[in-house]
Amino acid sequence: MADTYFTAAQIAEVVGGRVVGAESAAVNGVESLQMARPTHLSFLGNDKYEAQVLPSKAAVVLVPESFTAPPPEGRAWIVCSDPSAAFMAIVDAVTPPPPPQPRGVHPSAVVSDQATVAPSAGIGANAVVEAGAVIGENSVIGAGTYIGHETVIGANCLIYPNVTIRERCVLGDKVIIHSGTTIGSDGFGYLPGPNGHTKIPQVGIVQIDDDVEIGAQVAVDRARFGKTWIKTGAKIDNLVQIAHNVIIGEYCFIIAQVGISGSTELGKGVVAAGQAGIAGHLRIAPGVTIMAQAGVPKDLTGSGEYYVGSPAVPRKEFAKKEFAVKSVAKLKQTVKQLEQELAELKKSMS
Amino acid sequence: MADTYFTAAQIAEVVGGRVVGAESAAVNGVESLQMARPTHLSFLGNDKYEAQVLPSKAAVVLVPESFTAPPPEGRAWIVCSDPSAAFMAIVDAVTPPPPPQPRGVHPSAVVSDQATVAPSAGIGANAVVEAGAVIGENSVIGAGTYIGHETVIGANCLIYPNVTIRERCVLGDKVIIHSGTTIGSDGFGYLPGPNGHTKIPQVGIVQIDDDVEIGAQVAVDRARFGKTWIKTGAKIDNLVQIAHNVIIGEYCFIIAQVGISGSTELGKGVVAAGQAGIAGHLRIAPGVTIMAQAGVPKDLTGSGEYYVGSPAVPRKEFAKKEFAVKSVAKLKQTVKQLEQELAELKKSMS
Amino acid sequence: MADTYFTAAQIAEVVGGRVVGAESAAVNGVESLQMARPTHLSFLGNDKYEAQVLPSKAAVVLVPESFTAPPPEGRAWIVCSDPSAAFMAIVDAVTPPPPPQPRGVHPSAVVSDQATVAPSAGIGANAVVEAGAVIGENSVIGAGTYIGHETVIGANCLIYPNVTIRERCVLGDKVIIHSGTTIGSDGFGYLPGPNGHTKIPQVGIVQIDDDVEIGAQVAVDRARFGKTWIKTGAKIDNLVQIAHNVIIGEYCFIIAQVGISGSTELGKGVVAAGQAGIAGHLRIAPGVTIMAQAGVPKDLTGSGEYYVGSPAVPRKEFAKKEFAVKSVAKLKQTVKQLEQELAELKKSMS
Repeated sequence: MADTYFTAAQIAEVVGGRVVGAESAAVNGVESLQMARPTHLSFLGNDKYEAQVLPSKAAVVLVPESFTAPPPEGRAWIVCSDPSAAFMAIVDAVTPPPPPQPRGVHPSAVVSDQATVAPSAGIGANAVVEAGAVIGENSVIGAGTYIGHETVIGANCLIYPNVTIRERCVLGDKVIIHSGTTIGSDGFGYLPGPNGHTKIPQVGIVQIDDDVEIGAQVAVDRARFGKTWIKTGAKIDNLVQIAHNVIIGEYCFIIAQVGISGSTELGKGVVAAGQAGIAGHLRIAPGVTIMAQAGVPKDLTGSGEYYVGSPAVPRKEFAKKEFAVKSVAKLKQTVKQLEQELAELKKSMS
Repeated sequence: MADTYFTAAQIAEVVGGRVVGAESAAVNGVESLQMARPTHLSFLGNDKYEAQVLPSKAAVVLVPESFTAPPPEGRAWIVCSDPSAAFMAIVDAVTPPPPPQPRGVHPSAVVSDQATVAPSAGIGANAVVEAGAVIGENSVIGAGTYIGHETVIGANCLIYPNVTIRERCVLGDKVIIHSGTTIGSDGFGYLPGPNGHTKIPQVGIVQIDDDVEIGAQVAVDRARFGKTWIKTGAKIDNLVQIAHNVIIGEYCFIIAQVGISGSTELGKGVVAAGQAGIAGHLRIAPGVTIMAQAGVPKDLTGSGEYYVGSPAVPRKEFAKKEFAVKSVAKLKQTVKQLEQELAELKKSMS
Repeated sequence: MADTYFTAAQIAEVVGGRVVGAESAAVNGVESLQMARPTHLSFLGNDKYEAQVLPSKAAVVLVPESFTAPPPEGRAWIVCSDPSAAFMAIVDAVTPPPPPQPRGVHPSAVVSDQATVAPSAGIGANAVVEAGAVIGENSVIGAGTYIGHETVIGANCLIYPNVTIRERCVLGDKVIIHSGTTIGSDGFGYLPGPNGHTKIPQVGIVQIDDDVEIGAQVAVDRARFGKTWIKTGAKIDNLVQIAHNVIIGEYCFIIAQVGISGSTELGKGVVAAGQAGIAGHLRIAPGVTIMAQAGVPKDLTGSGEYYVGSPAVPRKEFAKKEFAVKSVAKLKQTVKQLEQELAELKKSMS
């Protein structure tokens, strides 16, 4: 988009909106309200940011009907029913295409002759694919990524550069894994003893089902036996810890830096917000939301409930605790006054 | 094991147990009670899971003497003195052997001619070993792993793929390091100044003693000077932060996502549970347990004590705090009643 | 330094200090007080460690004027005005030079013929540089590191081994990035729907300005559109999460394992201590300090203020909360006594 300018009038036509202000205002890029320069298109997608529209340098801003302040000289609003959607349509139209992904096996990649790579798959520079591994149709293995022995990767997967997937793991179709992540490292299992900890072999695998996306710097341990299992459509953000034998239910949403301890099972659609921690061997009911930094020491059974704090309790209970702490100061004053009144009363009676 | 079936009678003979139920029930794999399919062997290793035995689909289950419910039609229990140990013996017998590790130097690896690699060591595909590095007997350097200048790795170490160990670090024997981990990155040290932070050179090393295991995505910073030191037998889980000049005592057990700040020293056998954080320049007494998500702002002196909360306090003290908060609501009622009684009393006297 | 010994007298001359004790005490290495052996030089840089000077095995210790205890037989103090600075000068003089960095393009590196690499830059073994990428003068790309399409890296940058920087990111001059880190992974953005989460394309970039240093295992996500932006001189420790569209102000200081959620903006000089978490779409005023493990749910406006706890509140307010909790037990006793007194009073009146 950088070399081509579009006028407010042209954009309004594309998104089916109405121009208010300078129809000839022209832009050659997109940005958020706050970071836009004078040649940028922006949008008001959330009432929370209304106060950013006028100070924004964006020449053209997509706004909802409810936004009525007139544009300053030389700028234009495009009034439309859904500014976020309109903006995304423009973004799609003007952003450069994604960079090319590897197709075929790069000459520098080390692919075992006992591995099976689909003809339409791509193996990046310096990637390593071990014996017995299977890479499905249209899947991409990024540069420097390691695929261990007998690991099976389905179709249309995108494994970014410098990922490690160890032996015998199983990925479904359309799985995305971001850089730096490790799948299939040993679970943290030891037998305590008088002369230190004895390692318990971790001979299971990791199974990742269709449409799962896993962020950067994530660690997913292989099972002690059986499998650590991330089910269909779950989305996992960066720097998350998933211990051995954990089960992540369908469509779970696990935000950055969450830690889930061994053998815990999350039901369908559980949301765990940033830095939450969940102890081992627990069951989290489907539809539970665990708030940021919460610490979960026991089963959570309340589908649809929000859990807060460490140890985590239902949201209302947490609010009560906070209120109790705040009310102590006033309570102390009341008690002090009671003491005085009682003392005076006693005195008056003596 | 997948192609071969074993009957309950055969397994009982191997583990020295007694069959209750269908002697001919046959299995071709192992799984936890909860995830087992009808062709699986499972086990009851912990009374906590007793209720999972009957609903489990596992055809054959290893159970302790104390478990007396009879098996349903077609299934079998094998009663034995230690079901966990028996199960592990079976697992060992039937799991596929671990995948082969590299032996010799892979042709794609870049090994300096000034490095010393033992003849029995293995250097994986696309690994890099710099000048002056030493790789001991039977040690394995995984694919894509980087070993910096003059770093010395002992015998029988297993460094998984895509690990980075920077210059001049020293590893003992039988050290295991999982994928994605960085050893010897610069400590986070700066001198504050009016024009920003000035970097303090971090010229020390990391020393890792025998039998240490370090998980995936861990960061262990090199010392400002001298060494960051992880002592014999310590076990460190995934995504742990170990800052410069930290000392981790023998047999410490550091669970996922723990952070330990600069120059802090953990005594022998300290346990730090998931997501705990420890401030800098502290001493943690041997045998202390720091509970999950605890935040430690000062020295901990109570060997054998459990510390909870942020700021962390001994377990009993934390329980008292929780109890205090819970008792405020009732206390408020009591005070309100006292106020009323006192008011009535005054009124009756006037 | 290991092969050469220096006497206390020689060191005193170099640092302009005065010897107390054995002038001929000789050292061949440097260490902290606590870890020094008898052939080491150490220093007392902080009064907090005064008690470590006498038990230390260091033959020679740099001490301030205020330290007056005499050295034991055979050891020496060197009294000087700034023992830390003096020690660093000696460290500089005696530590081995940093290991050589790659110069030129290593034959095993895979550099696109459509990339532009400055003649003075170095590309390490098995590194990958994609088409359209630009590597500036004297910059180093470590072994195994991946530089994506059209990413531009300025002059004098040091990108350590096994880093991933994805497409179209922009780095200024003198940027340091440690091993294992990922720059430019997709932001965690989805549209919720009845059939799971639909991925929102993340078509922005990451911009990192001059003099920024980023630790190991860090994740910095690319913007949804526009840019995630780390401004001049900011320092970021290990295992930090920086989500899409975050802005980190000049000279911010972000300690290990901090998480910053999407679109949040940190003003100039904000300090976030270890394991703190900041929710999305917030503004943190310049000069704010967020203490370790704090959880920030809303804008912080108090420049110069310290915020503590989860949810984070100003330091004094947190102290009040802690005090309130502690005072409940005593308050309960007081109320119990009031009840008794009142009961007795009523009885005496009946």
